[in-house]
Amino acid sequence: MRRVAVVGAGMTPFREHFGLGIKDLVPMAVSEMAAHVDKGLDRSDIEAAWFGELSTTDGFPSGILADTCGLLDIPVTRVENACATGNDAVRNATYAVGSGAVDVALVVGADKVRESSTRTTFWEWAGMTRDSAWDYPLGLIAPANFALHVARYLHESPATREHMAMVAVKNHRHALPNPKAQLRFEITIEQVLAAPTVVEPFGLLDCTPQSDGAAALLLVAEDVVDRYTDRPVWVRGVGLGLDRVMHQHKRDMTSFPPTVKAARAAYAMAGIGPSDIDVAEVHDCFSGVEMISYEDLGFAERFGAHKLLEAGETSIGGRLPVNPSGGLKAKGHPPGATGVAQCVELFEQLRGEAANQVDNARMGLAHNVGGPTAVSAVTVLGIGKD
Amino acid sequence: MRRVAVVGAGMTPFREHFGLGIKDLVPMAVSEMAAHVDKGLDRSDIEAAWFGELSTTDGFPSGILADTCGLLDIPVTRVENACATGNDAVRNATYAVGSGAVDVALVVGADKVRESSTRTTFWEWAGMTRDSAWDYPLGLIAPANFALHVARYLHESPATREHMAMVAVKNHRHALPNPKAQLRFEITIEQVLAAPTVVEPFGLLDCTPQSDGAAALLLVAEDVVDRYTDRPVWVRGVGLGLDRVMHQHKRDMTSFPPTVKAARAAYAMAGIGPSDIDVAEVHDCFSGVEMISYEDLGFAERFGAHKLLEAGETSIGGRLPVNPSGGLKAKGHPPGATGVAQCVELFEQLRGEAANQVDNARMGLAHNVGGPTAVSAVTVLGIGKD
Repeated sequence: MRRVAVVGAGMTPFREHFGLGIKDLVPMAVSEMAAHVDKGLDRSDIEAAWFGELSTTDGFPSGILADTCGLLDIPVTRVENACATGNDAVRNATYAVGSGAVDVALVVGADKVRESSTRTTFWEWAGMTRDSAWDYPLGLIAPANFALHVARYLHESPATREHMAMVAVKNHRHALPNPKAQLRFEITIEQVLAAPTVVEPFGLLDCTPQSDGAAALLLVAEDVVDRYTDRPVWVRGVGLGLDRVMHQHKRDMTSFPPTVKAARAAYAMAGIGPSDIDVAEVHDCFSGVEMISYEDLGFAERFGAHKLLEAGETSIGGRLPVNPSGGLKAKGHPPGATGVAQCVELFEQLRGEAANQVDNARMGLAHNVGGPTAVSAVTVLGIGKD
Repeated sequence: MRRVAVVGAGMTPFREHFGLGIKDLVPMAVSEMAAHVDKGLDRSDIEAAWFGELSTTDGFPSGILADTCGLLDIPVTRVENACATGNDAVRNATYAVGSGAVDVALVVGADKVRESSTRTTFWEWAGMTRDSAWDYPLGLIAPANFALHVARYLHESPATREHMAMVAVKNHRHALPNPKAQLRFEITIEQVLAAPTVVEPFGLLDCTPQSDGAAALLLVAEDVVDRYTDRPVWVRGVGLGLDRVMHQHKRDMTSFPPTVKAARAAYAMAGIGPSDIDVAEVHDCFSGVEMISYEDLGFAERFGAHKLLEAGETSIGGRLPVNPSGGLKAKGHPPGATGVAQCVELFEQLRGEAANQVDNARMGLAHNVGGPTAVSAVTVLGIGKD
């Protein structure tokens, strides 16, 4: 496969954008991406697009991207993979560019969750990301579904709700300097522990907000990278993993096997291991999920995630800063956009341009887990060709 | 890009499968595909899957495929592109295999339209394949949307409703020997013209039925093709094209520009032209759409489609048989499955194994148009490497 580079990245702020629809958010992200291509982008260079989109009720997703961005002469594929949608769109675009079929590809992720155009509610489409006949009628929407895992994790590991609160506090603190983040205020461990319960063991401040937003990346083949920048960020690895959908079929609630599979694939493609990662954007839809993911991604030993938090290793300034953007927890989580926006953050981190910069970051990892913990996508980005 | 071959193909009958859900239909199609691989398929050979799925309300699509087929250790990507979903799933799998990322890929398309598991109706999800704010509230669901095009086409071209009826009569006749087809009965031109009006100019017999079904293909890299068959069918070209979604933005109602763009891309990749095609599966969701598509695909001159019908050129025995399977009109149209099932038909035609065999077919074309005529996908399959 040809090498593939990211040469442009942009995103809207993640917010409750009550005044904007997905038709506004998508072109805003694409325009910011185009403005950030070092040597400029003539939009007619774009040969194909991949659109990560999960929940819109505004109509035909591929057509929304083509129409609102004026990209009517290129193919647009909508990719959907629950909360792993964004990084799977990156993966599919990487294969197309890698294959030689196209030299320049656009990747967009977007979702409009708050106040959609039809009566379909957030929790109606949430049914589509799990089993509608079994898990959904039992109430296993996202918070409840992840709560089953984290409750068991707290039971089997030394980790406590205080450790979960440390994740939330860290990610809120990281979001402070990020103008794209939705929740830019500091919180304390005491506040997290005292917050109203959403579902045991999650209080309100353990949970991601509902967000609207869009993010965009420009992926190009190594053959043409010099036309766009002298500072490319390379797609070093992509991976996607699955597991059984329904909870009665999960063998071990304290780990997410899709993450283990996706990470293994991405590390293998990149020819690296977890110790080579300098900065990571990890799927922290609920605070405890970031802890389990440290272990699934190989950042911590089994049941050892709490030690990283206690030592501050995943805070900025630590050994492996996680979610310098604020993460889903504080940056926000429009599902289709989330994975793409993680790569936007890594692009900026690896080029030394992030709002909340990590020192000497050369290799970054983006991670999603979703679809009732049945799917995970991992992308590894790096500077330098090797 | 490495060459990519189809080495297995299978599908369920297209029917109103009131007693089966998408969780039944998907593994049925995959099992038939596996049984049709000449030298056998060990399912653990499958390295990745692409799932074309448009409308299920049964839950997380990628997970449904992985769960019901026991394919839990591979990545599964759901692709959605309105009625072009199936052939776009083929296109994305082709890029992944072509890139070298995987050697053996599964492509599945499926939809369960009749009696879904929730209250969501056919016409509710149909809103998702057009603009929900403008076209959908005006009543521009599929029949009305295509009727605007075909009415104008009948006005500007010499074609008449009788020519449209000839398409319906031909495709019903073609479906007769096909055990997978939904409407296996002959009809007459008089019956088509006398049928109750659905929307001018379409009578009931000008319209595709609503169908449930699934189809599956096995795509492999040229490097490993010999493990599976000595009679591969090669993916010679793939193409996807878009156009504006809303009807007030269409410049010419008598042509579908997405088809022109998709066909141009697929022909260019294959290094052929329309005269090289021996057999075609063309998107005949409504009879007049097959006529317009003859012209967009380059099979007929502008406003000359009726001449092909008058001369019987697109009937079996003619110069270029179109829809030997019965087409969407008589074989049926479960949207996510349709494009994949067209390739199943071509696979059988090119290997001389079809239920309704076309003589000496060496190059075949599959075509979808949908998403209020805003998207088209074209796949060219051929035997022989050049």
